[in-house]
Amino acid sequence: MAYTIGLDYGTNSVRCLIVDTATGDELATAIHEYETGQAGIILDSSDHNLARQNPADYLKGVEATVREALAKAKDANADFDPSQIIGIGVDTTGSTPLPVDKQGTPLYLLDEFKDNPNAAAWLWKDHTGHAEAAEITALAENEHPEYLAKCGGTYSSEWFFSKILHCLRADPGVFDAAYTWVEHSDWLPAVLTGTDHPGNLKRCRCAAGHKAMFNDNWGGYPDAEFLARLDPKLGKLRATLSDETFAVDTVAGNLTQAWADKLGLSAGIPVAMGAFDAHLGAVGSGISQGVLVKIIGTSTCDMVVAPDSSDLPDIPGICGIVDGSILPGFFGLEAGQSAVGDIFNWFVNYIQPGGPQAGSHEALTQKAAELKPGQSGLLALDWNNGNRTILVDQRLTGLLIGQTLHTTPAEIYRALVEATAFGALTIINRFEEYGVRIDAVVNCGGISEKNAMLMQIYADVTGREMKIARSAQACALGSAVAGAVVAGKAAGGHDSFADAQAAMCGARDITYKPIAANQKIYAELYKLYKQLHDAFGLADYAPAPANVMKDLLNIKDNVNS
Amino acid sequence: MAYTIGLDYGTNSVRCLIVDTATGDELATAIHEYETGQAGIILDSSDHNLARQNPADYLKGVEATVREALAKAKDANADFDPSQIIGIGVDTTGSTPLPVDKQGTPLYLLDEFKDNPNAAAWLWKDHTGHAEAAEITALAENEHPEYLAKCGGTYSSEWFFSKILHCLRADPGVFDAAYTWVEHSDWLPAVLTGTDHPGNLKRCRCAAGHKAMFNDNWGGYPDAEFLARLDPKLGKLRATLSDETFAVDTVAGNLTQAWADKLGLSAGIPVAMGAFDAHLGAVGSGISQGVLVKIIGTSTCDMVVAPDSSDLPDIPGICGIVDGSILPGFFGLEAGQSAVGDIFNWFVNYIQPGGPQAGSHEALTQKAAELKPGQSGLLALDWNNGNRTILVDQRLTGLLIGQTLHTTPAEIYRALVEATAFGALTIINRFEEYGVRIDAVVNCGGISEKNAMLMQIYADVTGREMKIARSAQACALGSAVAGAVVAGKAAGGHDSFADAQAAMCGARDITYKPIAANQKIYAELYKLYKQLHDAFGLADYAPAPANVMKDLLNIKDNVNS
Repeated sequence: MAYTIGLDYGTNSVRCLIVDTATGDELATAIHEYETGQAGIILDSSDHNLARQNPADYLKGVEATVREALAKAKDANADFDPSQIIGIGVDTTGSTPLPVDKQGTPLYLLDEFKDNPNAAAWLWKDHTGHAEAAEITALAENEHPEYLAKCGGTYSSEWFFSKILHCLRADPGVFDAAYTWVEHSDWLPAVLTGTDHPGNLKRCRCAAGHKAMFNDNWGGYPDAEFLARLDPKLGKLRATLSDETFAVDTVAGNLTQAWADKLGLSAGIPVAMGAFDAHLGAVGSGISQGVLVKIIGTSTCDMVVAPDSSDLPDIPGICGIVDGSILPGFFGLEAGQSAVGDIFNWFVNYIQPGGPQAGSHEALTQKAAELKPGQSGLLALDWNNGNRTILVDQRLTGLLIGQTLHTTPAEIYRALVEATAFGALTIINRFEEYGVRIDAVVNCGGISEKNAMLMQIYADVTGREMKIARSAQACALGSAVAGAVVAGKAAGGHDSFADAQAAMCGARDITYKPIAANQKIYAELYKLYKQLHDAFGLADYAPAPANVMKDLLNIKDNVNS
Repeated sequence: MAYTIGLDYGTNSVRCLIVDTATGDELATAIHEYETGQAGIILDSSDHNLARQNPADYLKGVEATVREALAKAKDANADFDPSQIIGIGVDTTGSTPLPVDKQGTPLYLLDEFKDNPNAAAWLWKDHTGHAEAAEITALAENEHPEYLAKCGGTYSSEWFFSKILHCLRADPGVFDAAYTWVEHSDWLPAVLTGTDHPGNLKRCRCAAGHKAMFNDNWGGYPDAEFLARLDPKLGKLRATLSDETFAVDTVAGNLTQAWADKLGLSAGIPVAMGAFDAHLGAVGSGISQGVLVKIIGTSTCDMVVAPDSSDLPDIPGICGIVDGSILPGFFGLEAGQSAVGDIFNWFVNYIQPGGPQAGSHEALTQKAAELKPGQSGLLALDWNNGNRTILVDQRLTGLLIGQTLHTTPAEIYRALVEATAFGALTIINRFEEYGVRIDAVVNCGGISEKNAMLMQIYADVTGREMKIARSAQACALGSAVAGAVVAGKAAGGHDSFADAQAAMCGARDITYKPIAANQKIYAELYKLYKQLHDAFGLADYAPAPANVMKDLLNIKDNVNS
């Protein structure tokens, strides 16, 4: 028997999963909630953009969860022995960079900076660098449009250089004390393997490629001259960023004796290069060519791979196209919807239609499921939190059309679900317009497991089978898959991601296939959605959508007749 | 001392108001709920378009309410004597036609038809004639477009000929038994004055002009040939419709001895020609040139007068332009919003934001009143029940734009109130585009009395002072004014409507004046409203409204900064 460990660093907690490399059976799991700040996040009541984390929580988390998971594994299977753990994989949130000193120690762990949140890890959802993001976008548009072409045309405030440049401006003391900045996903595997000295540390492909404009086409990270135009000090930082990055099939290093003792594992087992949670979640969900993996939560992350031998064009509006960022040997393509579950939560929690009982997700879904497509005469845009893909415009807002004096909360709820389905189809269509085929969709995340109506609507709207990833812990499972690959077949693991996924990943028995009659109505509705999408989303779109209200009523009348 | 009686026949009940002709003081009032059907309306569970009334309820109502009001008047003022009542005015709903036999007896009061709703009064909101309305509109468009030009371009299912033609088709037995059809507002004064024999009955100007295409320009009602094209029998009915109609300054007749005895009044006192409730409500609210009277209820009725000496053009989208229909000597112009209170009721009763307590009108208004104009970033169209003026399109639907994940019910509530204010301004602007000046607005109806936030928003959006009619019974008061005019000054009444209104009508002390800072923001928001209005309401409007979402956010940012 051989097992690997998947470590999944989320926004509020870290999870350890022990997985059988032959079957994917999940032997044991343990969770540790970060202890610093509120739900693990250092906040600032005077600046709602600020969100930081304590790197010490990351270290405490790995020790606590691995120890607990090992104990549970022994309870579950008396034959289990920690020596059967042959490899480790790690996924984290991102872009979550942290400043480190010349020895690789996070500044926040030094006495001098222990109370300074600017010296902590800058969590993915920290938006303090929004002005710097705009500045980087503007400069790149003028001087290096190719930098933006691979990340959807706009450099985000959530990303690596926006955060670093903001630190440079807002707290030069911290910036100056930092030798370099590393991603959480770079740092954690490096610590476990004693390679965290900046001279040794390997940087992971997916963070660099998706969040830091790294691309082999232009020699890796943006050049020093470009960064110096933003600030001379940022130009100097470029020398500390390596010219090479590594995908998850690469060994970050081998577990040190000290960490092996702390965790109760064998020293020397390989630890895979880290990657973002969504990307290893895609691996754990069984991503492969032609299969889009959709992680549905408050927002979605939509991931696709395309052979890296192909002459893949830049795809306008797609957040990132990075060689090897999801699966080695493939371009990883990332898209997403800025709000999905958040829109339903807004309606249920903020608007509270019908009050807390009548307006619960379950009650609304039950009533909404009784409606036929097109029957309400309603249509919505899913832009309450902007549009990440394909318009890349965070300032877009929601829209609901078709209300009468008889419109019910359940009808609106269904229209909001349908809007997110139309948004999903728009992303799929964009991929296909640029030659990336999407045959099926594997979904993961709680909503996909809990809401059968939503899944059926997604199947009907997209015209594609909706599968559900077997594991409820797809990210941690993906990390365990990476651990199995770096361990290799000889050690009880696998020699390729394809082999590892075939053995360890899978879909649930329940699946949702398009229903032809519904598809037909949704095809009509999607035309109207696209019309509103273009009329409100594209500055240069001409025709006014005067037909939309009447067309919706005609569809409604036809459905009801 | 001299008093007149105003009889106000509403949808569910009739009210009698006794008013001092010198001061407008309302000495006593009494209400009688109609007894037949549900809340006074004969319904048909298999046809929700059907809404009829029993003419016997109208007769019972006048007797019950006048007797009760006289008794109350005596209680209120020991010096009061019924002989001080010098005239009567009557308003009713409309178009509410009823079939009568050759003697003028309503068919429903005959044994033969007592259980047949087709023989009853066809209440204004009966929509059984919707197919016939479309047929009449189509024929008029081809052959007599001038018939439609005075009533907004579309003949409604709520109107006189749609109902009669539907009866002819659906129940020829009733149609054949009817000698002619009279409006409730024609019939009631005729009954009280013994002039209800078809040979004697005078038809009122406002019903004929607004609902039956009557106009002196083409010799009164539509010609027999036109009606015969719809059905030969309808062509024959034309001979029973008089060529002359009468405004409310005309005496319908004098109270008969029999009715005087029944009511406890003096025989021979004059009864004014009837008119629709909204029109006499406008009179009771103090309508005059330059003053728009807005009756705000579930929908609105907006009324304006213009000198009938003026060369008034047809105004596209205005429901009706009829000489003398509101005030003698003036064109009466009628517009309206298809839903106002109904939109707020929909949100509160159907959507129930926050549940029954947190989502009451009062609770939402209180929170909404704390918001600044433009602060929510929301904008709505007030079309949940279509658009009566200026688009005349019942199939238009609602729209809400600008939602984020933080949008609250109170913000939506305010956006809906603002949408109705923008709709109100659109009507005012249409009048002014065609040379009919609107300097001030007098509002009546419960919402205007109860919702100060709404009134202030209306003032800020329209840039006009919002007054509130002094009387809470503006329709009944307007009828009493008509009663005072037909009685004349010599008898203790007045010789003109202007004199009678000056003495008997007025506005409340509380008034709402535009606040310049709010006006400025609303002017920006109205531009965006008009853009959506035209983009979704006009088939031939070209530019897509892509700017609307961002402009709303810019306004929001400016308001918040």
